Amino acid sequence: MRDLLSINDLTKDDALEILDTAVQLSALSESTNRKFPTLRGRTVVNLFFEDSTRTRISFEAAAKRLSADVINFSAKGSSVSKGESLKDTALTLQAMGADAVIIRHGASGAPAQLARKRWIDGAVINAGDGTHEHPTQALLDAFTIRRHLKKNNGDLAGLRIAIVGDVLHSRVARSNVLLLQKLGAEVVLVAPPTLLPVGVEQWGATISFSIDEVIASCDAVMMLRVQKERMEDLFFPSEREYARNFGLNATRIAAMKESAIVMHPGPMNRGLEITAEGADSHKSVIVEQVANGVSVRMAVLYLLIGGATSRDLTAQIGEQS
Amino acid sequence: MRDLLSINDLTKDDALEILDTAVQLSALSESTNRKFPTLRGRTVVNLFFEDSTRTRISFEAAAKRLSADVINFSAKGSSVSKGESLKDTALTLQAMGADAVIIRHGASGAPAQLARKRWIDGAVINAGDGTHEHPTQALLDAFTIRRHLKKNNGDLAGLRIAIVGDVLHSRVARSNVLLLQKLGAEVVLVAPPTLLPVGVEQWGATISFSIDEVIASCDAVMMLRVQKERMEDLFFPSEREYARNFGLNATRIAAMKESAIVMHPGPMNRGLEITAEGADSHKSVIVEQVANGVSVRMAVLYLLIGGATSRDLTAQIGEQS
Amino acid sequence: MRDLLSINDLTKDDALEILDTAVQLSALSESTNRKFPTLRGRTVVNLFFEDSTRTRISFEAAAKRLSADVINFSAKGSSVSKGESLKDTALTLQAMGADAVIIRHGASGAPAQLARKRWIDGAVINAGDGTHEHPTQALLDAFTIRRHLKKNNGDLAGLRIAIVGDVLHSRVARSNVLLLQKLGAEVVLVAPPTLLPVGVEQWGATISFSIDEVIASCDAVMMLRVQKERMEDLFFPSEREYARNFGLNATRIAAMKESAIVMHPGPMNRGLEITAEGADSHKSVIVEQVANGVSVRMAVLYLLIGGATSRDLTAQIGEQS
Repeated sequence: MRDLLSINDLTKDDALEILDTAVQLSALSESTNRKFPTLRGRTVVNLFFEDSTRTRISFEAAAKRLSADVINFSAKGSSVSKGESLKDTALTLQAMGADAVIIRHGASGAPAQLARKRWIDGAVINAGDGTHEHPTQALLDAFTIRRHLKKNNGDLAGLRIAIVGDVLHSRVARSNVLLLQKLGAEVVLVAPPTLLPVGVEQWGATISFSIDEVIASCDAVMMLRVQKERMEDLFFPSEREYARNFGLNATRIAAMKESAIVMHPGPMNRGLEITAEGADSHKSVIVEQVANGVSVRMAVLYLLIGGATSRDLTAQIGEQS
Repeated sequence: MRDLLSINDLTKDDALEILDTAVQLSALSESTNRKFPTLRGRTVVNLFFEDSTRTRISFEAAAKRLSADVINFSAKGSSVSKGESLKDTALTLQAMGADAVIIRHGASGAPAQLARKRWIDGAVINAGDGTHEHPTQALLDAFTIRRHLKKNNGDLAGLRIAIVGDVLHSRVARSNVLLLQKLGAEVVLVAPPTLLPVGVEQWGATISFSIDEVIASCDAVMMLRVQKERMEDLFFPSEREYARNFGLNATRIAAMKESAIVMHPGPMNRGLEITAEGADSHKSVIVEQVANGVSVRMAVLYLLIGGATSRDLTAQIGEQS
Repeated sequence: MRDLLSINDLTKDDALEILDTAVQLSALSESTNRKFPTLRGRTVVNLFFEDSTRTRISFEAAAKRLSADVINFSAKGSSVSKGESLKDTALTLQAMGADAVIIRHGASGAPAQLARKRWIDGAVINAGDGTHEHPTQALLDAFTIRRHLKKNNGDLAGLRIAIVGDVLHSRVARSNVLLLQKLGAEVVLVAPPTLLPVGVEQWGATISFSIDEVIASCDAVMMLRVQKERMEDLFFPSEREYARNFGLNATRIAAMKESAIVMHPGPMNRGLEITAEGADSHKSVIVEQVANGVSVRMAVLYLLIGGATSRDLTAQIGEQS
């Protein structure tokens, strides 16, 4: 592994190695001193063409806990907005010695272009590109599901996971479908027909137009964020109707299995795709997802630019304890 | 002490402990290497819902000198501006492992809400909330007054301190009135009647409508910043009239006691609440206030999240010398 | 040397010392661990009144590789935009303990004012002021030329270097003319008459209105960025005509000496002052300029605030190897 562009680039074993490494780093992070010297002297650049404070901060926290230097490059107000090409921006970061470039871009495929053309020697990590993918989000979701539903870790075989909402525009949904299936889970996509992409039947997932038909049978229910601007584009009729037909509320929570969990990539629109009762329910692991995001991103940085494998980390932990 | 939300939460001894610790840290900071390992591995988040480069930088410098990792979270352009609740923002920072959240917010009481609901395990530090409080500003002001006017430290008993200007809208004034009185000083509020809050007579301070009546008797004169947008709201008639009636100019400086000092929380409107002669007078300690701000904020971070007391610091200094 | 405001302040020996130090730091940077403890405990402030992500990041990377703490102060949305004077901003940074202030300002002379009035005890480094100077850009350009065209380092005697484009508004051109001549090179300025400043004949450079007349004789061709907003001001007729008359294209590249190099300070307008073939030609050292920028800025910080000379660095390298 050199970059992390798409879940498609990962074998099942790659994905499991990232998750296992994240488990170890998470355990280590809970000790008093959360800072590891692993990436001292390395430079990690957050190259964000779209605002996303949460994702940027999560990567920044992950990199700093590994002692990397972090440089934030927001494309707004930069030479990029003066018309510099992605290529020249990339070559600039490369020349400045970036060991990893974490890129968020509005255009699907921009991170892959960066990596494929090798404008950057360092690792390229996709932090969300257009409606394409957001692989670290899927990894942190898998991490969270595994932690709650699989006592002995391993893969996610035997689990049934619903992804509910605007699948059409969601990179989170795309990456999750790929990863959850790779790890053996069954995925159910729940959305109104207008919010499902053409060709979705080839994704290998079960399709449903009714959350109430599937909710009782699922081990995890992942609610997608409604992009309010979509509503203006008439993808769905009204907030109220959407909330009634697809929102996660107390009644639906009550219909879930006792062991099942509620997930959301954040930020939530409370009252729209999820009610306050849903968000704060004892089934909700939404806050934990954020914490797991840091661990998973530490694992990705560790494996991609730490020059090490999960095996080395095990040895290192042995030494410390 | 777990948080720093309001001067009201501090006993006199708490306040003196912060000031004494700041004195020690200030002394240490003057040595060549200003960086202490105390907060290595700790994460401090600057959560700013209002722009305030000065305050943000002051906390950032303080945290970095103590070796903490600092993450800046400007609410502009973030999911907060997309409608995320304060609760969800807080839970996110909590999940990312923030040991302290320094919050500046336009709404009075936002930091207290954050702390009281325990959305955050780490320390919550109020960096200015609405027209309510700005406790670290008051602490740095007390630090500055003590350094100049009290040879043997201790409290501020026997000193008379004027606070001049827009008391109505000033969180700096509120925090200062509370702290200065707690430390034994007498406070005189000087403002036109339109810029004094309802109920100000219960604050325990002397009220005056004329700077000229009180200036000769005060040990320190603290000028408040005029928010120019207030003028449009007709709180006072014109810049010129305000400057003439309440501005600190050379004549008024000359009327002050020889030992008295001139203070301002910054940024100054030179020519409005203070003339250039006032700002640059030998009585002015305005620049020093900024330096003292870093020391006081180091002390607050040290005591709140360093897991230590001022006693430990004394021991530490002993070892180094 | 206390500040770096203008190339005029440097003797030839000063300039060579910076370049030699940068050579050493560049060599050290290529080893695995790129971080040096030299500036641990020092605070470097990026005070940017104009957006320039590239220059800011370059200084930030340089300072962090030397282990300094970096604080970014963007004047937008700060008290500066609320009308605070440069003096008060400077005094604030000074009071916060800035060891170096790197300033980019729209007004020519702002960095010199900061330094001359000694509002700041620390080093003042000009990162571009109005149409005046950008000395670290000239130093990185000289570094790049020397690396390619002078086998045994030393000065640039005997080389002929063309600077092509909007000389009138270019601080990069001004700093380069001064430095290249100081180092013994011959400079040829190539521009339409409307884009040459009044009095340019006193600069000591050769003037040409035709790139084709001079290109075959030059060892380096430095293309200046076209500021598109100038076009609206009618400094030149059209993009197409500018590209045809002054742009660097494949035909012109072919006319250059075999050993000659193509330079650009970035960001490029591909298709305007330089074609893609020009930018990506084997003669192009444009990307390398960026990397050299970090080394040169490390050298400047090292010499100005590291409390050391290039001699000390040599000793240090000796120890490490």
